[in-house]
Amino acid sequence: MAEIRRDPATSRWVIVSTDNPRHPADFEKEITEKSNGACPFCPGNERMTPQEILADRESGGQPNNPPWSLRVIPNKFPALRIEGGLDRSGLGIYDRMNGIGAHEVIIETPVHTKRLADFQPQEMERLFQVFVERSLDLRKDKRFRYLLIFKNEGMLAGASLTHSHSQIIALPIIPKRVSEEMRNYDEYFEQKERCVFCDILQQELQEKNRVVLESPNTLCFAPYASRFPFELWILPKTHLSDFAETPKELLTEAGNSLRQVLGKMRSVLGNDHPYNFLIHTSPLAGTSREGYHWHLEIMPRLTRVAGFEWGSGFYINPTPPELAAQYLRGEKTI
Amino acid sequence: MAEIRRDPATSRWVIVSTDNPRHPADFEKEITEKSNGACPFCPGNERMTPQEILADRESGGQPNNPPWSLRVIPNKFPALRIEGGLDRSGLGIYDRMNGIGAHEVIIETPVHTKRLADFQPQEMERLFQVFVERSLDLRKDKRFRYLLIFKNEGMLAGASLTHSHSQIIALPIIPKRVSEEMRNYDEYFEQKERCVFCDILQQELQEKNRVVLESPNTLCFAPYASRFPFELWILPKTHLSDFAETPKELLTEAGNSLRQVLGKMRSVLGNDHPYNFLIHTSPLAGTSREGYHWHLEIMPRLTRVAGFEWGSGFYINPTPPELAAQYLRGEKTI
Repeated sequence: MAEIRRDPATSRWVIVSTDNPRHPADFEKEITEKSNGACPFCPGNERMTPQEILADRESGGQPNNPPWSLRVIPNKFPALRIEGGLDRSGLGIYDRMNGIGAHEVIIETPVHTKRLADFQPQEMERLFQVFVERSLDLRKDKRFRYLLIFKNEGMLAGASLTHSHSQIIALPIIPKRVSEEMRNYDEYFEQKERCVFCDILQQELQEKNRVVLESPNTLCFAPYASRFPFELWILPKTHLSDFAETPKELLTEAGNSLRQVLGKMRSVLGNDHPYNFLIHTSPLAGTSREGYHWHLEIMPRLTRVAGFEWGSGFYINPTPPELAAQYLRGEKTI
Repeated sequence: MAEIRRDPATSRWVIVSTDNPRHPADFEKEITEKSNGACPFCPGNERMTPQEILADRESGGQPNNPPWSLRVIPNKFPALRIEGGLDRSGLGIYDRMNGIGAHEVIIETPVHTKRLADFQPQEMERLFQVFVERSLDLRKDKRFRYLLIFKNEGMLAGASLTHSHSQIIALPIIPKRVSEEMRNYDEYFEQKERCVFCDILQQELQEKNRVVLESPNTLCFAPYASRFPFELWILPKTHLSDFAETPKELLTEAGNSLRQVLGKMRSVLGNDHPYNFLIHTSPLAGTSREGYHWHLEIMPRLTRVAGFEWGSGFYINPTPPELAAQYLRGEKTI
């Protein structure tokens, strides 16, 4: 069982793998060992993964066997485990709890080399529906406070396998970034009686110079204080705190926006550029929920410079968002 | 002139290089271009750097000429510039100011291949004195709110040159991590009338299992909620908020602790493992100062997994600090 520990100096929670720790000699080996051998996410290799939680088999067939178009499995090396109690406890000045949670992998396509930018609209629509389906199922577990849906694409972005996949982690705590955003939202709302993200949307729609893509109900733009070159956010235009409650049409539209901007990114940044995306949504029941506006953040990994940023929370971004948006809108070419 | 921009959703400040931006084609070139050619930090190549601010020439000689044992120069590609006014302004919902600040590079040794772990005690002592000297000089500028002293060692940690160097950035704002620590400190102090870092020190000294090195007046340990494998903190044992006011003997001791733990890290993690270190100190005049306990954070860069951590502020650490400390104390071998 892993442990979740709290740093009293920053209130930051960290998952510490106390049960299956990595030793100094394990770090170097990692890249080479994983780059050879069969892909566990390819059809025909289902026995290499844990038993599936959900799968799409349009033409029928047996679980954990081909053919399928999408599969959800528990992570074989989960950061958190589902069995057991939280056992919250103090250790002098420190706080800890057991590493309870869920960690699932969504194998987005059976085709080893297909990227999200290659997806058909209906494939992306289905992926977003699966995000919602898994969210609705996982939130039944009352131990969980937060669901984190994210994707690591490319080795430089932390992916250990190249076959396209995303992940869902169910956490018994709220991640720091989300609680910060909630705190800020609350302060902002108290002052102005308006949602900070709604106000951001309005200003971006007026200024237009950071907008990359607009659809009837979503906006994709390079945020004013982008941390990374070509960072993008996708937001629903109307105030909606909970991703899992997104109406079907809006969900389809959001998936389609993601598909389109990933295509634009590829044409500007080259094939297979590494990136992460993350869906920030409101915490689960038991904590404040209204004060939030869900959004999807895309962070390309173009710069190696990240050392002191981690330690200081202070970022230096060499590419202004206005310039990134110009490239992505196709007004500027490389 | 760069811009410093505030994200209204998180209150995070970001430096955006609006004056000399990087375009999509610039990202790939970077590594190859910088890896060939003469090293601008080597003796004899002083003309390749801006005019020096400070240098140690034990045997005399001309400025910007060899021989020297240490040199401080302005960064040739500064994130912030010293000339001009802050010109704080609002842009609708957004806040911005001019990219005013200082960005200096400390060339720590004339020897191209020498690492900090190879330093003699008096060389490290001098380096820490220079950190203080530059801090005291830079803080005379009343526009600055914070001084960030840090080192990127190795390409993976964000260094663009291999010749050993550290950096000082003077900022007109307080970095997020420091203001978070201050907020937490304040809450903690209000409840307990004690400093959270002083309490952490006491508990680490009692438990001992995360301690790596103890000297009469400093403690080096792997923090309880370490974000990264082999993360280490060095703290003065007595409460001291301002790094630049560290008494000479304690400063020497802190430098010596850093030198020794870097040696231990090298023997466990291998030659030239990449890392960052950062000195967290209290903000400059005009903001709360007492509520802080300076410390040096060392973050080895062993894991590629960092994508969603950036976005969520939520970390997964595969190596428990207790295990890291065992290796670094030499009780466990690879």
